[in-house]
Amino acid sequence: MIKKKNENLYPVEGVKLASIYSKMYKKRRYDLSIIELCKEAIVSGVFTENKAKAAPVIISKNHIRGKNLKYLIINSGNANAGTGEDGIKDIKKYCRKISDLTSCNFKDILVFSTGVIGERIKANFIVEALPKLIKRLDENNWQKFSKSIMTTDTCNKTSCKKIKIRDEVVTITGVAKGSGMIMPNMATMLSFVATNLKISKNELDSILKQLTEKSYNMITVDGDTSTNDSSILISSSKTKISYKQLNLKEKNKFYSCIESIYIDLAKKIIKDAEGATKFITINIKKIKNKKIGKNIGMSIANSPLVKTAMFAEDPNWGRILSAIGNSNVGSYDMRKLEIYIGNFLIFKNNQLNKKYNENKVAKYLKNKNIDINLILNNGKDEVTLWTSDLSHKYIKINAEYRT
Amino acid sequence: MIKKKNENLYPVEGVKLASIYSKMYKKRRYDLSIIELCKEAIVSGVFTENKAKAAPVIISKNHIRGKNLKYLIINSGNANAGTGEDGIKDIKKYCRKISDLTSCNFKDILVFSTGVIGERIKANFIVEALPKLIKRLDENNWQKFSKSIMTTDTCNKTSCKKIKIRDEVVTITGVAKGSGMIMPNMATMLSFVATNLKISKNELDSILKQLTEKSYNMITVDGDTSTNDSSILISSSKTKISYKQLNLKEKNKFYSCIESIYIDLAKKIIKDAEGATKFITINIKKIKNKKIGKNIGMSIANSPLVKTAMFAEDPNWGRILSAIGNSNVGSYDMRKLEIYIGNFLIFKNNQLNKKYNENKVAKYLKNKNIDINLILNNGKDEVTLWTSDLSHKYIKINAEYRT
Repeated sequence: MIKKKNENLYPVEGVKLASIYSKMYKKRRYDLSIIELCKEAIVSGVFTENKAKAAPVIISKNHIRGKNLKYLIINSGNANAGTGEDGIKDIKKYCRKISDLTSCNFKDILVFSTGVIGERIKANFIVEALPKLIKRLDENNWQKFSKSIMTTDTCNKTSCKKIKIRDEVVTITGVAKGSGMIMPNMATMLSFVATNLKISKNELDSILKQLTEKSYNMITVDGDTSTNDSSILISSSKTKISYKQLNLKEKNKFYSCIESIYIDLAKKIIKDAEGATKFITINIKKIKNKKIGKNIGMSIANSPLVKTAMFAEDPNWGRILSAIGNSNVGSYDMRKLEIYIGNFLIFKNNQLNKKYNENKVAKYLKNKNIDINLILNNGKDEVTLWTSDLSHKYIKINAEYRT
Repeated sequence: MIKKKNENLYPVEGVKLASIYSKMYKKRRYDLSIIELCKEAIVSGVFTENKAKAAPVIISKNHIRGKNLKYLIINSGNANAGTGEDGIKDIKKYCRKISDLTSCNFKDILVFSTGVIGERIKANFIVEALPKLIKRLDENNWQKFSKSIMTTDTCNKTSCKKIKIRDEVVTITGVAKGSGMIMPNMATMLSFVATNLKISKNELDSILKQLTEKSYNMITVDGDTSTNDSSILISSSKTKISYKQLNLKEKNKFYSCIESIYIDLAKKIIKDAEGATKFITINIKKIKNKKIGKNIGMSIANSPLVKTAMFAEDPNWGRILSAIGNSNVGSYDMRKLEIYIGNFLIFKNNQLNKKYNENKVAKYLKNKNIDINLILNNGKDEVTLWTSDLSHKYIKINAEYRT
């Protein structure tokens, strides 16, 4: 596996990007980006399940069914959510400008927005910025793009890898944004990943669906699913060999690589969670099925009481037990449950481990990375989730977001 | 309706109480209580749905089926939860002492605990306190009892009323505790209400079930359901007339009175919610059924983003919209949805009200009591829920709970 350089992200042949400051964002920084796809490119997407879908989600969910997608336009600073018909009109206005400049159709444009909900988007700012923006299109602009989609994020989230399959170099490059209002489904607010590997639409859809479940759907900051969540996977189809032609080992190599990109981006979102002082991994093992495991994990990960205990570095494991009891776990599972914090066995046979040493666990909780490990002893499946603690800073960030 | 005196709670004939400091609680204050019921008394109970049920819940859920319940013993400072077989043994130990002192059977005792989860209860402390405790039994000890069950509560929660039905005085007196780990079902950690009105077990069960749904099941502080929640309704059967003999108007009079007690106690829990600076009432009107209404309301009430916005007095209504979209609301409901904060119409016809004035709403949010009103325009039912904001103090209280 070829490692990426620290400061640069690998370009993906056939995918050009450009970013600009359009005056949408309160601070002067990149806040508007456009992506241009080559003719052969195919695109898969998954979108928020929030019923109050933002205008750009309504448009993109519709357009993504098309076969000749050409442009993606993405802004931060305004979510264009809760804006009804006006929100749709505003999108049409700035997409018309893209059509004028590039002679592509409205239906071949995908639209994404992130930022404050309920305020009308300044379509004029986008229209004005577009001519200059389009001139900047270049395959080497992934870093700028990743910065342009930040909102409360304190850092940009990127991940890329190159692998060799037969004699060809397959590149995967991805960026994501999000640090609050993070909860499946979808967890991330925005994610864009591209590869040059030729692959069919069905195969791409299937890979995105699987990887979303393993990555963005396994993280939570605050249990709030946003109105704008969108995750896009692009193939520019530039390789000579196609996914279908690969043998099982080669397919696995590609899958592992793209899986690691998605999990890396998901973890980076949690590491940058609003006000987070801890990165918490919840491993749930020997479960009947993933659905139960995820439900147990989310009950722990979204419990304000568990999260504040982690912030306080307090081994108040009773709150973990209580959170498990609040999930859809069966009574049968509870009897065989083992709870570990790090490698310390705390709870087994329905009671506290006699050898439990609270001081040792308190010392362990001083680490930034905390593992909570559960063994249900009731099956062969397992899941891993990631979350953050709940700190004073979360309150501060979210109380002051618009002021 | 006869009003209660401010400092005293009406005694209920046939229900004696006693409280003592047993050394269980960290501070010197009442932490152990016992209630003695007259021979004719009948008792209904609803208990936590958390699957990690505390030892006292396991015992009481079993014993409450009996017909000759005589004593209720309640401690604060230790929840006796996550203690497995040891927890049951400890309960048996101190109940044996009650049996020795009063010659009642173990199966005629109900047991309640509230406090830290996962630590073994000091049964010896209870055993030692019992002889003195039982000597103090008196019908006039409701206030002391209400104080003895407090944990993170900053005040005791009480409510009582007297009404005249025909020539008899019907008394209803209740106490509750809880300020964090509050979420249906059940919301309150502990609630005890008693009346002298003669009533059958079935009728009492039915009233408790209905009123629980309208009161404790409509409040949330942090979405965490505790391992120990128990709500007990006692009838001492001391009136000559029985509920069955009442006409519809008289039945309604009694029902309204006991309903107001339950709603009063539920609201008092939210007013004392950990770190709360706001008391938020969520009214959801013109809904198809209560289940949808409750789901929408809980999605708003448990959203950390809505709660921090309320704390910040920020009319960030987009977070309310997003929380509604995260509930099981239908897309159809969303189209007809109206959102009000106080009397200010904010959102209608799928967009911001053109006349919306953010400054006015920001001023309204400076009040301690905030109303969020939703009209779904999709049916005739309605529900009301109550919740608190999420403040720095919530984090502080829960991060420092055991230190």
